[in-house]
Amino acid sequence: MSVIYNRVALIGLGLIAGSMALAMRRRGLAAEVTGYARTAATRDTARRINLVDRVCDTAVEAVKDADLVVLCVPVGAMGAVAQEIAPHLKPGATVSDVGSVKRAVIDAVQPHMPANVHFVPAHPLAGTEHSGPESGFATLFDNRWCLIVPAEGASPQAVAQLQALWQGMGANVDQMDADHHDLVLAVTSHTPHLIAYTMVGVADDLRRVTDSEVIKYSAAGFRDFTRIAASDPTMWRDVFLTNKDATLEILGRFTEELFALQRAIRQGDGDLLFDYFTRTRAIRRGIIEAGQDTDAPDFGRAKKDG
Amino acid sequence: MSVIYNRVALIGLGLIAGSMALAMRRRGLAAEVTGYARTAATRDTARRINLVDRVCDTAVEAVKDADLVVLCVPVGAMGAVAQEIAPHLKPGATVSDVGSVKRAVIDAVQPHMPANVHFVPAHPLAGTEHSGPESGFATLFDNRWCLIVPAEGASPQAVAQLQALWQGMGANVDQMDADHHDLVLAVTSHTPHLIAYTMVGVADDLRRVTDSEVIKYSAAGFRDFTRIAASDPTMWRDVFLTNKDATLEILGRFTEELFALQRAIRQGDGDLLFDYFTRTRAIRRGIIEAGQDTDAPDFGRAKKDG
Repeated sequence: MSVIYNRVALIGLGLIAGSMALAMRRRGLAAEVTGYARTAATRDTARRINLVDRVCDTAVEAVKDADLVVLCVPVGAMGAVAQEIAPHLKPGATVSDVGSVKRAVIDAVQPHMPANVHFVPAHPLAGTEHSGPESGFATLFDNRWCLIVPAEGASPQAVAQLQALWQGMGANVDQMDADHHDLVLAVTSHTPHLIAYTMVGVADDLRRVTDSEVIKYSAAGFRDFTRIAASDPTMWRDVFLTNKDATLEILGRFTEELFALQRAIRQGDGDLLFDYFTRTRAIRRGIIEAGQDTDAPDFGRAKKDG
Repeated sequence: MSVIYNRVALIGLGLIAGSMALAMRRRGLAAEVTGYARTAATRDTARRINLVDRVCDTAVEAVKDADLVVLCVPVGAMGAVAQEIAPHLKPGATVSDVGSVKRAVIDAVQPHMPANVHFVPAHPLAGTEHSGPESGFATLFDNRWCLIVPAEGASPQAVAQLQALWQGMGANVDQMDADHHDLVLAVTSHTPHLIAYTMVGVADDLRRVTDSEVIKYSAAGFRDFTRIAASDPTMWRDVFLTNKDATLEILGRFTEELFALQRAIRQGDGDLLFDYFTRTRAIRRGIIEAGQDTDAPDFGRAKKDG
């Protein structure tokens, strides 16, 4: 594949930025990739493992002459970074981001953007429970979705170029408006994360069921919650603070349904439980058919030939 | 390994029984394994795939001369099966089960057991979201826990023999009393399952977020819930109906914590969220150190070398 941007600057060097750097290198999508991280320790690590072509000590230096600048910092830090780099952006450059919330990022970043810069927010739906510069890998985005949320009046050419980059990094691309994005993600990601965090917190609090028992006997269900609840705390704090309305709405729906099931348990209404559990099976089939997960039992942890 | 029981009868031929049959065959732990399933279709499948040595058309025939009878049916069906087979059990035989709830199984089965039979309930903490006779595999129990819950006055020799069988099938064995078992499992398995079912049900109900969007964009969190929520509906209905008290207690704790986090989101209390999410990370580390999960990112779905 050929070069899509001459110079790409990654601001923030965590799991997503690191994976982008490696995915771009894999296909030669950028002639040069620069990177900046807030802490010296992260910058040192990035240099040591040769994560990007050039690690810079300031964000301003990293964005100099960049054709694409991608903000890969927690959602709550986007505004301040945008303000800092704005005067130093190359005319005609594209600025994008990878935040899990889109309305709040647009509200925080857009006001700082010069008129001669294209702002094209995006959100790759990919990640793991690991974080930091050493957690990235080139195949993270393969066959995952990247949602592009162009601002009103965005240049179609700038959008198409960013889309080509994400496709080059292995992703499928869709466009969506910001508010709809935030609602869909509240359902598929934000609320499930909050629930997983809560369940793991409950287990941690229960002194009658000691920690070691909870950990030893975690195989059946709880284990999957702990993986989700091991995700980066700063990132998730910002997600909930900035996608407050949609998350609270879906949480309201969730507790309403949970109380209905709780009532069925209390009243011994087995038919309601059976019908409910039968209905949820179909969704799983849809996800496997859509190619977004494996049908291997227990996520492939169960090795049939072991 | 040498033969531990001369004849083993498996009543019910689903994921757990099928995996037991294959795990016993792998190490030659039983001279003969018989099996019985309620439906002719399941019995036919079991015969076709040669799951056990002999598939019987009645439970009574299957338990004849068996040294160990294992009830592998949903918890709600245990009592009726126990009553049916009781008069036909070999004197000195051991009867066990694999139910996810122990107090209710003991209450349902114990009254039917003849005085000359050893009743030793057990619960292997292993499974996948698949079910039926073709879902079993020999390695399902490898390095998983099996909790043995001996009735009061159980023969130490009968308990030791069952323990040896589970160890031979690859499991680690612990003993626990029934009520404590039910509480621990309410935390590590039953409540997480109910929550996952609920979240998937919410997503299914939301018509504004269409099914296809929820399915397409499921990668980040929700996908793991759908796997859990694809488990066998009959089995799980019975779990909640029969472990009602412990499940309702843990659910109460869960909603209490969830409301505290919901309030923090509404009030914008980022410190509370950050501290909570930081604390839950430690539990994940404990589970990986205890050998009950992999540290591979995203359960190994993310292939770094792909």
